[in-house]
Amino acid sequence: MISDLVKNIEPFYVMDILERAKELESEGRDVVHFEVGEPDFNTPQEICSAAVQWIEKGYTKYTSSLGIDELRQSVAEDYSRTYGVDVGYERVIITIGSSPALLLAMLTVLNPGDEILITDPHYACYPQIINVARGVAKKIPVYESDGYQVDPAEVKKNIGRKTKAILVNSPANPTGAVMDTDVFRELSEMGLFVISDEIYHGLAYGARVNSVLEFTDDAMAINGFAKLYSMTGWRLGYMIVPKNLVRYVQKLQQNLFISAGSFVQKAGVDAIEKVKKSGRSEAMVAEFDKRRREMINGLSSIGFDIAVEPKGAFYVFVNSSRWSRDSWRLAFDILENCHVGVTPGIDFSDRGRDYLRFSYTTSIDSIREGIKRLGEFLA
Amino acid sequence: MISDLVKNIEPFYVMDILERAKELESEGRDVVHFEVGEPDFNTPQEICSAAVQWIEKGYTKYTSSLGIDELRQSVAEDYSRTYGVDVGYERVIITIGSSPALLLAMLTVLNPGDEILITDPHYACYPQIINVARGVAKKIPVYESDGYQVDPAEVKKNIGRKTKAILVNSPANPTGAVMDTDVFRELSEMGLFVISDEIYHGLAYGARVNSVLEFTDDAMAINGFAKLYSMTGWRLGYMIVPKNLVRYVQKLQQNLFISAGSFVQKAGVDAIEKVKKSGRSEAMVAEFDKRRREMINGLSSIGFDIAVEPKGAFYVFVNSSRWSRDSWRLAFDILENCHVGVTPGIDFSDRGRDYLRFSYTTSIDSIREGIKRLGEFLA
Repeated sequence: MISDLVKNIEPFYVMDILERAKELESEGRDVVHFEVGEPDFNTPQEICSAAVQWIEKGYTKYTSSLGIDELRQSVAEDYSRTYGVDVGYERVIITIGSSPALLLAMLTVLNPGDEILITDPHYACYPQIINVARGVAKKIPVYESDGYQVDPAEVKKNIGRKTKAILVNSPANPTGAVMDTDVFRELSEMGLFVISDEIYHGLAYGARVNSVLEFTDDAMAINGFAKLYSMTGWRLGYMIVPKNLVRYVQKLQQNLFISAGSFVQKAGVDAIEKVKKSGRSEAMVAEFDKRRREMINGLSSIGFDIAVEPKGAFYVFVNSSRWSRDSWRLAFDILENCHVGVTPGIDFSDRGRDYLRFSYTTSIDSIREGIKRLGEFLA
Repeated sequence: MISDLVKNIEPFYVMDILERAKELESEGRDVVHFEVGEPDFNTPQEICSAAVQWIEKGYTKYTSSLGIDELRQSVAEDYSRTYGVDVGYERVIITIGSSPALLLAMLTVLNPGDEILITDPHYACYPQIINVARGVAKKIPVYESDGYQVDPAEVKKNIGRKTKAILVNSPANPTGAVMDTDVFRELSEMGLFVISDEIYHGLAYGARVNSVLEFTDDAMAINGFAKLYSMTGWRLGYMIVPKNLVRYVQKLQQNLFISAGSFVQKAGVDAIEKVKKSGRSEAMVAEFDKRRREMINGLSSIGFDIAVEPKGAFYVFVNSSRWSRDSWRLAFDILENCHVGVTPGIDFSDRGRDYLRFSYTTSIDSIREGIKRLGEFLA
């Protein structure tokens, strides 16, 4: 009665950490959270006000399965302003978060048994989403010493008869790496269909972030409002797809999800038009950059070796093999001994036992406190 | 670059009707809508107020992947009050609508090639959701002359080596049929895993509606807030699953959807606690019942033969072969000639060319006007 698919889903190891952290907190312990991949900022007031206003107006019905035109247009214009690309709004499809958008992408492109290339390390959910579409995730290792840049030659070597696409993520979870423009261009011109997870766009610190749509229209960009606008609990994402795929994705959306939320979509319009366009989101980005520096300097000061500093998202992914070759154990030891939550690398990589991920989605003071405790424990 | 899955998705024929209806309206025509499967009522004020309050409190982050305990408890208690069943809240999983819940159900139960029994006619999306899980929908015909009741003997005959489950829907879309208690019990005791789509529960007119959980705990109940609480645009649903499946569904949810919306879940609590518990939802049900009578009597008066009257949901599904053996053409002829939108039966059934679906999600006046126009056109 239980499908092989769900039997074989890997657990999120970080969830075990999170649960134990909550237990410790309920016992009165003060836990520093470096394990959470969610911005700690409030959703900006303009966005909340829009939602309230549209709820009060009774804007609470299904929308078109593609999303409301107003939001599709805002997204298209935002991509045009940010990347200088001309994206017709009719290529934008609004979704209930970027995860469902990724699922729609996989189901649209993959036949059972088709391969899709992903990096290792990668966002924890990619292989499972690919599995649901009955595709095969083929992993291309990227290395700390290269700043986690993808090697196009390595990608080429891995393209086989069954390879349908490559899934890229820049800025990346868990590494914080931003893909070099030349690398991204080369990957986009290889004849492989590119699915680009752009959910961390906007969260970059000094690095130029490219959209796949700067290099080709024959690709999918997946994005959402969760990270940049602190809207994780709103469930709002989108995808920009080639014109000839819109109708296919739409039919899937109609059947699987009907439409994204109505007043939530209206709030998304104000996220782009009032928060981002006015530059209001930059204050949050500046604050993340300060935290990033604090985290990088702190980790270096207690003996972590950060070969190339992460330039985007809100993560630092570092080798911890100096202290243990089992970072899952190490993460638990850290939590139990000094009440600091960190994510074991096995959630993201086949080589994960040597790595830990640190999120800087917490205050400067918390980062300092966490680093201090960690330093004492590891020494 | 396009998967066979999406190439083979059947379109929603009603969408063609809806689009043409909107064109006519933009040309200034007055269109009566019997094609829409969405309550026309506003979301009750208590629910809207709860959402506004929780947005203003900043309750806008991810929740646990299973949903907030408060809502899981409200759902469990609601099932207990309504059906006299004891459902532990830990078996309740909150989802981003009942459609994603159906997808989670299929992915949890079906291996590729496994069969699941559904009725014919059926909700338009079932076969596509089953396809996404690479299952095979095997159809059991139900007949107007039997009031669209499922024949357990027919079900038994269709159980084969690959049959994993049966998907039932009472009250049903598109027929409005409510399954007899004896039939439901027999289906639940056949050794087949039952997935029960209970999204129209609460919308019944004089008939006793059963939950599958009255007959067995080894089943899944799928439900949501869209229909009974007029919350279509909120995207909030849930599933109640056997204890041993909770962890599997949770892992899928973490990977595919992360969690349902946060303040939307809080609003769901007030839907149950303030709207349903107080009996406030009954006024809407009484109004639907009046419309149902109006629609049934109206259709009968202009020559439609309604063998057994529908007792739930908000649909009447009737044979139209007296006028045409191609109800898709007929639906368009009706729309063009008298500006009444109706849904062609091919969206729901292999025998659909002989049927039309009428929704009574519009006012009594509109129903009268639509029936008048329809009567004149068909005569």
